[in-house]
Amino acid sequence: MKKAIVLLSGGLDSATTLALARRGGFACYALSFLYGQRHRRETESARAVADSLGAVEHRIVQIDPAAFGGSALTDAKIEVPKDRAEIGAAAGIPPTYVPARNTIFLSYALAWAEVLGVFDIFVGVNSTDYSGYPDCRAEFITAYEAMANLATAAAVEGKGRYRIHTPIIAMTKAQIIQTGTELGVDYALTHSCYDPDAAGKSCGRCDSCRLRLKGFAEAGLVDPVPYAHCEI
Amino acid sequence: MKKAIVLLSGGLDSATTLALARRGGFACYALSFLYGQRHRRETESARAVADSLGAVEHRIVQIDPAAFGGSALTDAKIEVPKDRAEIGAAAGIPPTYVPARNTIFLSYALAWAEVLGVFDIFVGVNSTDYSGYPDCRAEFITAYEAMANLATAAAVEGKGRYRIHTPIIAMTKAQIIQTGTELGVDYALTHSCYDPDAAGKSCGRCDSCRLRLKGFAEAGLVDPVPYAHCEI
Repeated sequence: MKKAIVLLSGGLDSATTLALARRGGFACYALSFLYGQRHRRETESARAVADSLGAVEHRIVQIDPAAFGGSALTDAKIEVPKDRAEIGAAAGIPPTYVPARNTIFLSYALAWAEVLGVFDIFVGVNSTDYSGYPDCRAEFITAYEAMANLATAAAVEGKGRYRIHTPIIAMTKAQIIQTGTELGVDYALTHSCYDPDAAGKSCGRCDSCRLRLKGFAEAGLVDPVPYAHCEI
Repeated sequence: MKKAIVLLSGGLDSATTLALARRGGFACYALSFLYGQRHRRETESARAVADSLGAVEHRIVQIDPAAFGGSALTDAKIEVPKDRAEIGAAAGIPPTYVPARNTIFLSYALAWAEVLGVFDIFVGVNSTDYSGYPDCRAEFITAYEAMANLATAAAVEGKGRYRIHTPIIAMTKAQIIQTGTELGVDYALTHSCYDPDAAGKSCGRCDSCRLRLKGFAEAGLVDPVPYAHCEI
């Protein structure tokens, strides 16, 4: 059975990506990160998703919080924007962008892949219903893949070529949710909110909640996670 | 004054690279990593080198040791090769290669650069007198730079272009030592050995010691660090 590394945040996109990698016949090694997020909810969700979708192994890597700065997701002094009129590439890159985050995450995935002798890496980036982060776009992924194939002994020695799979990159959020639902993803286990309340309820107003709620509405499905505020 | 991030291992190459960045007029932010090396000597040397060469700040990032495997530098069960007949690209990639190490290090450098608003990153890779690691070659650095300029908000928003500087990449070890000596690098502070003894003496037999000793001999200089064994 082919093996793959799957980056798993515990959100809706990465859960669906894991389900697609499993459907593609891969034995999946899920990789999550703790990096001083405002909440640990994400990694708890990642654990539950990895278990429910039959990952062979789930590894959570600690990232020194000192490494990431300047983002509303890592610095409590920077506010998470709410109720933005427009979300996406045209609206500019919001303060929830974390500098070089996907570059660092993919680099850990590459290291683990090389140790395991794996050449397939799945990442749930999306550049349709997204917040405009540059490291979610296809041109970034293509450049990363080219770099990875020059960086590593396994590639240079001809043992294989690394491939970064982005199966949901061009889907709408509604399509992602429909696809995952067909594959049996339990979205009640996932967590997307950037700013949940003390009880763990999603805010319903940050970009991530709003993209998610819009996706469920367009898919004609009900989002199973609890919200403190929900307008859609 | 222009600012730069400088990757600093505490070895001879990165110390010289820091001195060259300083000579180039950069205010230098030095970045080192603790990643379950066999010894902490490297980061102690990095601290001393950063101080002696006037780095503005020196940050040491902890890397989860679980992230790196399969290398003689991170796994005590894998032996560091000694007295290899040939060292370099033609001799094959040795077990001291650490999967995706420079990719991960540069990714942290990129994150810090973006937070600081810095676009210049210096790294002391060398592909002349080296152990044949793929992530020390110019083609890797070029691909990394291309990726970095697609990965980050600062680049995509047109605030600047990231440049990965590799001032010693084509020098021989003797040239590196001569250059650093002219710039006032105190090589007594540096540490290169992969397998020092309990007293901290360099082994004199690993690839890193042998390249270093050969470099000092060819430069007509005496290496100031103590060796347990020294044939050159």
